[in-house]
Order: sequence, then structure tokens, then C-alpha cells
Amino acid sequence: MASHYVVRCVDRADPALIAALRDVGVATAHEAAGRIGLLGPAIQARQAGTTVAGSAITVSCHPGDNLMIHAAVEVCRPGDVLVVTTTSPSTDGMFGELLATSLMARGVVGLVIDAGVRDIRELRALGFPVWSRAVHAQGTVKASPGSVNVPVVAAGQLVRPGDIVVADDDGVVALAAATGAAVAEAAARRIRNEEAKRVALAGGTLGVDLYELRPLLRDLGVEYVDRLP
Amino acid sequence: MASHYVVRCVDRADPALIAALRDVGVATAHEAAGRIGLLGPAIQARQAGTTVAGSAITVSCHPGDNLMIHAAVEVCRPGDVLVVTTTSPSTDGMFGELLATSLMARGVVGLVIDAGVRDIRELRALGFPVWSRAVHAQGTVKASPGSVNVPVVAAGQLVRPGDIVVADDDGVVALAAATGAAVAEAAARRIRNEEAKRVALAGGTLGVDLYELRPLLRDLGVEYVDRLP
Amino acid sequence: MASHYVVRCVDRADPALIAALRDVGVATAHEAAGRIGLLGPAIQARQAGTTVAGSAITVSCHPGDNLMIHAAVEVCRPGDVLVVTTTSPSTDGMFGELLATSLMARGVVGLVIDAGVRDIRELRALGFPVWSRAVHAQGTVKASPGSVNVPVVAAGQLVRPGDIVVADDDGVVALAAATGAAVAEAAARRIRNEEAKRVALAGGTLGVDLYELRPLLRDLGVEYVDRLP
Amino acid sequence: MASHYVVRCVDRADPALIAALRDVGVATAHEAAGRIGLLGPAIQARQAGTTVAGSAITVSCHPGDNLMIHAAVEVCRPGDVLVVTTTSPSTDGMFGELLATSLMARGVVGLVIDAGVRDIRELRALGFPVWSRAVHAQGTVKASPGSVNVPVVAAGQLVRPGDIVVADDDGVVALAAATGAAVAEAAARRIRNEEAKRVALAGGTLGVDLYELRPLLRDLGVEYVDRLP
Amino acid sequence: MASHYVVRCVDRADPALIAALRDVGVATAHEAAGRIGLLGPAIQARQAGTTVAGSAITVSCHPGDNLMIHAAVEVCRPGDVLVVTTTSPSTDGMFGELLATSLMARGVVGLVIDAGVRDIRELRALGFPVWSRAVHAQGTVKASPGSVNVPVVAAGQLVRPGDIVVADDDGVVALAAATGAAVAEAAARRIRNEEAKRVALAGGTLGVDLYELRPLLRDLGVEYVDRLP
Amino acid sequence: MASHYVVRCVDRADPALIAALRDVGVATAHEAAGRIGLLGPAIQARQAGTTVAGSAITVSCHPGDNLMIHAAVEVCRPGDVLVVTTTSPSTDGMFGELLATSLMARGVVGLVIDAGVRDIRELRALGFPVWSRAVHAQGTVKASPGSVNVPVVAAGQLVRPGDIVVADDDGVVALAAATGAAVAEAAARRIRNEEAKRVALAGGTLGVDLYELRPLLRDLGVEYVDRLP
Repeated sequence: MASHYVVRCVDRADPALIAALRDVGVATAHEAAGRIGLLGPAIQARQAGTTVAGSAITVSCHPGDNLMIHAAVEVCRPGDVLVVTTTSPSTDGMFGELLATSLMARGVVGLVIDAGVRDIRELRALGFPVWSRAVHAQGTVKASPGSVNVPVVAAGQLVRPGDIVVADDDGVVALAAATGAAVAEAAARRIRNEEAKRVALAGGTLGVDLYELRPLLRDLGVEYVDRLP
Repeated sequence: MASHYVVRCVDRADPALIAALRDVGVATAHEAAGRIGLLGPAIQARQAGTTVAGSAITVSCHPGDNLMIHAAVEVCRPGDVLVVTTTSPSTDGMFGELLATSLMARGVVGLVIDAGVRDIRELRALGFPVWSRAVHAQGTVKASPGSVNVPVVAAGQLVRPGDIVVADDDGVVALAAATGAAVAEAAARRIRNEEAKRVALAGGTLGVDLYELRPLLRDLGVEYVDRLP
Repeated sequence: MASHYVVRCVDRADPALIAALRDVGVATAHEAAGRIGLLGPAIQARQAGTTVAGSAITVSCHPGDNLMIHAAVEVCRPGDVLVVTTTSPSTDGMFGELLATSLMARGVVGLVIDAGVRDIRELRALGFPVWSRAVHAQGTVKASPGSVNVPVVAAGQLVRPGDIVVADDDGVVALAAATGAAVAEAAARRIRNEEAKRVALAGGTLGVDLYELRPLLRDLGVEYVDRLP
Repeated sequence: MASHYVVRCVDRADPALIAALRDVGVATAHEAAGRIGLLGPAIQARQAGTTVAGSAITVSCHPGDNLMIHAAVEVCRPGDVLVVTTTSPSTDGMFGELLATSLMARGVVGLVIDAGVRDIRELRALGFPVWSRAVHAQGTVKASPGSVNVPVVAAGQLVRPGDIVVADDDGVVALAAATGAAVAEAAARRIRNEEAKRVALAGGTLGVDLYELRPLLRDLGVEYVDRLP
Repeated sequence: MASHYVVRCVDRADPALIAALRDVGVATAHEAAGRIGLLGPAIQARQAGTTVAGSAITVSCHPGDNLMIHAAVEVCRPGDVLVVTTTSPSTDGMFGELLATSLMARGVVGLVIDAGVRDIRELRALGFPVWSRAVHAQGTVKASPGSVNVPVVAAGQLVRPGDIVVADDDGVVALAAATGAAVAEAAARRIRNEEAKRVALAGGTLGVDLYELRPLLRDLGVEYVDRLP
Repeated sequence: MASHYVVRCVDRADPALIAALRDVGVATAHEAAGRIGLLGPAIQARQAGTTVAGSAITVSCHPGDNLMIHAAVEVCRPGDVLVVTTTSPSTDGMFGELLATSLMARGVVGLVIDAGVRDIRELRALGFPVWSRAVHAQGTVKASPGSVNVPVVAAGQLVRPGDIVVADDDGVVALAAATGAAVAEAAARRIRNEEAKRVALAGGTLGVDLYELRPLLRDLGVEYVDRLP
């Protein structure tokens, strides 16, 4: 029944919005979005100190087979982030230096993959950032069909084509493009709000006072004692 | 039945002793203590090349809920290490930049957490060292009671309030404060002893000779052959 | 029945051949060998940017017991790589600074271990590269017999004494010494071949055209559409 | 931003269709659907020999908090299957005998939960079938908001409210209600087709002949030899 | 420093109390104790439908070495439960038919082990119940020291000698002997309380009404809607 | 370089020998062999109470692709055990009812697979025993080459074609055919030896006396005390 598609058209969010969300980073974007869209911690940054944001081009591959990554390159545009999953769990090195070269030629800003990558040293030298489940040299074949730009699940999180993907050292978040403006606004508020908190906390104010948690602790039955009874 | 407590008073070890154990590092402290107190390898250093030691302030949280970390700040003193666990397994990012700012204002020297942290780039920039099970941006709530300064289990190891915690690139060890002086002394002996061994081994002496292992190998039935029979 | 042996003689590959394979790295050597010999991704580089290659000296230990590593030092020669496994899964820190010092005195170029290491900071300072399943300070005993230079399985991969082991940031591959020349030749061809591909892809040529994948995608029933039906 | 909802209305598939899919079981339904909709193998049947099918009522909970399961009961109807997830990984025993009693009173036919259950002996005695990630007695609180009947991801698979869920000893599959008729038809064809194959294979016909795989094996370069060269 | 001890004397709880806690089972005992003492879900029942309770005799072994289990037999008395851990993670089959025979001769009622067991078929035939992390035939040695009747951590839970251990299909809980009477009383109350709830829920009363959760759901901002906005 | 082969000829052990090893079971065979050949605990029996033994027919598959299992059927003979691995980790359901039917028609006595199986209920009904890493309905393709009757690694253990494979509730062991007679003899001795021990232990003799462990415990510094110092 199910057919395999390469979907060419993706509704991308406003680049200014994407840039704004890159500036706030994953943790703040995730909070501002109401704590949705976060990929699980098994997908990790494979470099330190890099943040990217872009529109998701999604790829669903057979495990051990990167044919559909090749098929996806053509539909990528500058500013996109490639998001790759497999139909069952895999740690194979489905992506390396040559695919990165090809994606960079298309202006793709990064890769999020629920599988493995290889040529990790060359990827770092190229400056192509990667978030992956594994680093493994295991090669793959080009033999099985899959799809490009269909909804996929990566590290337990639904990612739709065109989602705004933000990735940094804290992980990866995928946000519906339509919510981007509201999230960016909420993020800006949150950052202003946090700045005041940071100053207070750095000055020695306690979080239990700043967030007014003492009544809650009392209501929950938490007792303050000098020694355990 | 069980009640939730914030215990205010903790018997801390002598700062000079704590400093001495920081100087020897985790592997040596663990050996000098008779190989006890080591947390499991799932808790990893989130920065390279940093060693801390301090008195444990322990926190037991509901998973996905960092209320009790906030409650713990108040009982911390300069030189303490915060040790956080959850009552069931969690990788949520219970700790980030704001809590680190608050702890640094109290003089806390590091965090050991059997769960996740976030704002990892900011934590590195702040110079606040962290040992954690995960890095994950997933936010938490402040809704459920827990305890501060009760015995906890982190990565399979019992940690009591006031324990001397040493953490470096090799992991984390927790030692009863009362044993600190003896451990520090044994560690010093061990280091002197190792120095002589290092010189011998660097000079080409074999470990089987240095440690007199040849009779043991013989007794255990290990045969030396040129080729497998 | 089974006896424990220390096998002294190992047929090593030509050093020039080993150097050639080090130059191509793990991913290319693995591909050139027909995708065999790769250790699983659980064994990871514990430093970045280092590649080693050498002849495998293999060690089979009881878990939590590094006696046989000590026994193995004697049969190592300059240019060897020590490959250590345990008879059941273990993350104990079986290897640290002193053993590294001893191996460096014998000219050993690196360690691959399906278990844990400790003194990781000191190992980095010494410049002794390590690929391991874990970093853990947990100490071990010297009490149980094992073998040196018998075939072992590390991270799911058979490694025989004398195998050419190549290790870098992408992982570890073990190749039969007898196949080394052919693999090196195939690797050289592959690198020349990849260079042309890299230029084409960097210039914007698509992989689906370069690898002539369009007919395959058609045969597999992958449809190109503007929007999902 | 994100709000929490209890959605009351769910479009359920035709009960006859659901019954037809229960009869074919998970493996056949998954194949007939084009190999989509399967939950990962971490969610396992907690009894042997039971198959259920029903319309999905989905629940998204905070980890360690089963408040929203209680909120979901009200919107269940006879023939439904409850599908529960948490916003981050959890193995807590969020579900036990009392909730099962309540669901059975509503005619719910089974539970699929990406977390833990408890009272497993009582659940078996009640005859209420469960597919879960864990069995664990760990209790939960009722303190945090979540949603009922929003799309959720369970064991890496998107499940929408109203999906036809089929669960048996092989696992769990979730199918869009709209595709149910086509899947049931394809499944019926597949079963007829398999019956002929089963007879042929039981009679000694080889799969390589029945599926005409010999030309493929030849094209892929697989050589038949008496002994390894 | 650390010495190895076999501690002969253990303060055991009243057998009637132990029997009372066995009757209520793990989930209820854990709840009645205030949700403390539960071992993690990695330790699973290796038979179905069996509940045991007894006084903990604890054993700390070197991984892959069951010497101290042999040393522990002598200090066991009728009604005890043996609780075995290793100083680092292990799945070796440290326990089999012969040790079970020996323990049964001493009246020991079950084994809880944070490692592996073997002879699982024979153990079932003997009627000796086991809760373990793994089933594995891997043999062990008798070469390394350890301790009997010291506090141990099993599956993340501290267990002290003399603790009342209850184990059934839901897992294992360890309770301080001194709290046994209060826990048993709380458990009895809880069971009476649950009976009324069960009747109400079976009759169709909703948990949101029975537990008066509607105001909480409202306060938490959970909205009831017919369709997602 | 590497080619793919179907090797037709396998040197099988004497059926009487295989039957003798089946009678002793996995744990005893593994011990009698000197504790070699055991597969890791991740491969589990998918039925209870069944023991099989036979000559290994080995299969190496691409992950998610069962083409080579089909190719292997032809070279199987009555009494063989099929041992299937994948070139990288996979939990896909590569094997189900139809393949079992085909293997039973060839007289194959069981399957050991380092991947997933499906149709688990039908397999039980057929009486075809399976040891697998997972149960998962995920289907596979028939698209990639592999090999039959080459050495493979399953759950960390090397298995060669023709090895005597014994599998029961304790796991799976693979023994070189040439060692079969000696192992069977050693196993018979071991069983006689164990019978005497069982009688002694059942009669209350302690293992520390039976195995004469008291001097060892003393030498290792284990102290007997009434209470912890």
C-alpha cells in the first residue's frame, strides 16, 4: 500500500525568524514553545560550540541504506537542515565527507541524523555540523526505497518537512513553522526575564524566594530540620 | 509514611583534607580508600581537564522536577559539591545556567547529577563544572516534594551528606568524611610508590617482574608457547 | 579443557603497508577491504584527531582482572597495537597511566579495549591514544588466568593476533595481515576515485546523477511529487 | 505557548474493520499497510497469546505523573485502546489494577504504554492485556498537566487519536483509520497468498525458487562454492 | 584501607510482620512505606506468580566471582532472602542449581541478584524463586574477596542486612526492619481503602471524580475541547 | 574486495555426540568446554523448557534484509541449527512462520539469531524453537548480498559453520566440532561430580567446606565478625 515519495515543495519559515530562533538556542526555543518539539538525548552534537537553525528537509531511509539521502539533496535549498531517520534502529555510518560536500554546495547548514555518521574528522575540518546517534565507519548500500519530505520520527520526536530545526550543544528542537513567530517572541520575553533573574541569583538571592517556592514546599509537606529525625 | 526533609546541618570534612584529595584525583582516591565509593561510568564529566572536590550536599528529586534543587541552594556553603538524584531514572535537563549562577554565588564548586543538564555551553563559559548522565534541553517542573541532605544513590553508589566528593575526567568518587584523613595518607603513599614504578616501567622493566606475577601465572596454568597448539 | 596461553610469536605485516593503511584511515580501509573487520560503535576514541595503525597483540582477560595485560607487554614490539577483551562484559578501568608507560617503553602505538580505562587525563598528557568502551576509575585485580595472542572478539568483531589494526575518530578496523597489500591498493584507488567525486559534488553535481541513481529510484517505485497526495 | 487539552471527540473506525485487523494480527497488518505504523520492540506484550485491536485514545503525561490517564478514562468508549506516553523517558509504574478496573468498566480492551505498569499479576488475573516498556512498582504523582487525544510518539512511532491499534505477541501497530479498509483488504490477499506459499514451503520447495531469488543472488555477486577459497 | 568482612549477626524482623508484608505484595508495601526502598526495573522475576518475603542477607562480590556467595550461606537462617551485588556491573551467571540446593537446605526463601543466574530451568523445577538482572550461563571463579552483611546497592537501591525484602512479579522492595510494623499497618489501611475504590471504579465512577481531580486539572490549565483548536 | 559466498559443504559432528551435548545442556557444556563458546545474554530463548543441539549453518545478512536466510535453507540438513547475524546491529523481524515452515521441512531443529523474529505465537504453535535478540514485527527486504557458512560473530561470540550449537533456557553455546567428544566426556564427569555435591549440599554441608574455601577466604583477608567494626 504505502508508496515512496520525493516531495519537492516545502513551506519554509521566514529566514529572519529562523535566525532569531538560532540566536536564542535550543533550550530557550524549547521552553518558549511550551516544551514541545525536543528530540531525545541519544542524538548528540558531534562538535562543540556550534548552533544552527534551518528548515527541515526530512528523509526516511531503510536501515543500512543511504539511497534516499542522495535523492534528498536535490530538494534542499540554502539554509535548510537535513533530518534523516531510518525505518528501524541503525547506527551505520550513512553520511560522510562526500555527502557533506554535496550538501554544502546546496547551502545546507547542518545534518540531524537518527543513525551514524563517519569521516567525523573531515566533517569537522569542512565545518559541516552534525547531530547524530552514533559515529561509526560502517558503510551502507544504495538499494532500498524510502521517502523525502514526509513526516518522520527522530529520537522520539515527530519532525515535519519545513519545521524550524534549531540545534546546538544542548540537542535539537523541531518547531512547526507556523508557530515560529510566536515562539521567537516568547523566547525574547523569556531572555529578558532571565536576565533579571540571573542578576538576582548572581547577587545571592535564593531561587526559593525569587520563584516564591516556600509556600509550595510547605504545602507539599517538606519539613526543614537541623538533623534527620 | 516517609516524610520529606530539608536537613540544614551537615558535618563537613576539613578543607585541607578535601584539597589534598582533589590533588590526588579520583582514581588514586578510590584506590586509597580500598576501592569503595565510586559512582558508575554512566555519569560523565561534561568538560575536560577539571578536578573538583568538596562536601556533598545531596538532593533527591521527583523525575522531571527540580523543585528540590532550588530548596538545596540555601544549605550550600563555599566548597560544597551538589549531588542530585531522582527517585526513578530520568535524563531531563534539570539544571542549567540560572541554577549554576545561583550555586556559584554560594561558592559551590561543582555539580554531580544522575540525570540531565542543559545550557551546557553557558556552563562551560561560566566555568561551572558538571558531571551528569545526560545533556538534554528537556525542561522540568517545580511541583513535587523531595529531600535535601538525606542519603541518596547516584549511578549505583550511596552518597551521604557531608561525604567528600572528588570528581575529574575519570568520574566521581564519594568518601565518608571520617575516612578522609586515612585515605589522603594512603593516597600519598600510593603516589610515592607509583612514582618508583613509573620510572621502572618507563625504563623497560616489565610489570610481570615488577609485581612478581610470573609465579602466579604459572600457578594459574598459563602456558607460554611460540604458537598455539 | 580450554587452556590459557601466552603466544609469543605473531606474524606481523610489513610496516610500510601498515603506514599506508594508517594514512587512508578507518572508513576508507574498511571500504577498501569490502566492508569487513569493523569494530562496533561502542568502542570510541578517547582523544580527537589521532590515527594509529599497527599489528594486533590480543589479550583475553577475566572481567575486572588485568593480569593478562601485564603478561602481554613482554610480547609487544614497536609498532604494535594492544587489543584487549574480557570474557564477559565489563566497564572496569583495566588500564591506566602505569600500563601506558610500560607499553610506550615497548614502542606500542595505541590501545583498543572492550572495557574501561582510567587516568584518562594522564593518558592524554602522555600522548598514548586509547579506544575504549568506557572511562571508569574502577580498579581491577590480578587473580585470574587468560590468554595473549589468541583470536578474540572486541565490540562484535573477530580480531586475530597480527591483524592490521587501524583506529581513528571514526572507530577501529582489524584486517587480516595477508589482505593488507590488496586493501592498501584498493584504498588508494578509492581515494583517487573519491577526489574526482568530491570536485564534482562541490561544483554542484548531484549524487543521483553522479552515481546514476535515477533509474534505480524509478525501478524501486519512488515517485516525485510536488505535494503529498 | 503550548496548551494542554483533553479532546473529547475522536473519529473511530468501523468496528467490523477493527475486528478484521485484529484477526490478521500485527505482522500481517503491518505488512499490508506497506510496513508503516509499527511501534519499536522496546514495548512488549506483558501476557502471551492475546491479540487486541481498537481505536486509539492517546495520552501524553509528564514522567512519573499519571494525572492525565485519569483524565482520559472519561473519553474512552467500548472497544478503545489506551495509548500512553510521557514527555521524557520513564519506566515508572504509571498504571495498575485500579486504573485497569476503571478502563474495563468503560469497555476499553487494552493498554499500550511507553512507560511502566505494576500490579502485573492482578492485571493478568483481571484479563486486562498490557503492552509496556517496563514492569515496575514505582508509584507516580498526580500533579502535572498533559493532554488527551493529541498526536503522540510511542516507542518511536507517531500515534494519532482514532488510529486503529493492533497489538499481539509480535508488538503493536497503529494505522490511520482512513486506511483501515484498504489495509484489511491487502491483509486478506496477503493471507491467501501466504497460505499457498506455506504449503509449497512445507512440501520442501525452496524460498529461493518460490520467490525467484536465484537471478538476484547472481546479480549481487553471491558465489556458490563447496569450500571457502 | 577497606577490609572485607563476613558479618555473622543480623537483626531480623518479626516473622509475622514479614509474612504480613508478603501478603500485601511489592506495590502496596512500596506505597505504604512512602515510596521508598524499590529496586530498579532491571532486576526481574525469573518466574511468574511467586511472592516471597524475608530478611536480607547481603553479599558484595567481585564481578565474575561468586566466592562470597559461598561464604554467605553459613550465616543464612530459615526465612532469609539472599541479596547479591557486584562491585561493578556484571551479567555473569553467578548462581545456579547447586547454590540453590545449598540455600534451600538452610531455609532461604529466594534470591535477589544484581547480576546473572543460570540453570534457570532447574531452579524453576526446584521451586527456588529468583529475581535477577540477567540469565546467562557464563561461569564464575572463586578468587576475589568481598563481604557478607554490609550495606549494598542493588539496581540503584540501598539494601541493608536485615532489611525486609519483598519480591513478586512487580519487582523487589527493601524496607528497614524497624519500619516494618508501621508499613504493614499502612498497607492494611491502603488495601481497605483500595477495596472501596475498586468497587466504585468497577461501577463506573470516574477517577477524576473519585480523587477529585477536576479542580486540579482546571488549575493546571488543562482545557476540555471537542476538537483541537 | 570481500566476496559473498554460499558455502555448500560443512563438516558436521557425529549426531550421537550432538545428542550427548544436548542432554547435558548449555551451562554444563560451556563449563566442560573450559568456559568458551558462550553467546552473550542479549540473545534469549523465546520459549521455556526447550533444549536443542545441532550443527551450525551460519548466515551473515545486511541489516533489515533476509535474502541470505532464504539462500541458506538449501544447504541445511536434518539436525542443523541456523545461526543468523547481521553486519551491523538490527532488531528487525527477519524471520517468521514461513521461513520456519521451510526450515522444518529441511529438518532444521532451531534458530539462533542476533536480530529479531516475528510470528512468535505461530512459531510456538509450530514447535520451532528460537533464540533471538528481539521480537519485532518489522519486515525486511531481499535486496543485499551476504554469505552462508562463513565464520560469524553472534552476541559477541565467534560461530563457525559446523560448530556444535547447544541452546536452552540458559542461552546458547557454540563448540568446535573437533572438541565435541572431549567436551561430552568432560561434561559427563562434571555431572557425576555435581551429583555428589548436590547430595552433600542438600544435606546441609556448606560450600565453603565442600570446596575447601576457608583457607582462601583467610588468605584474601576476609574477616569474620559478629558486627561491623
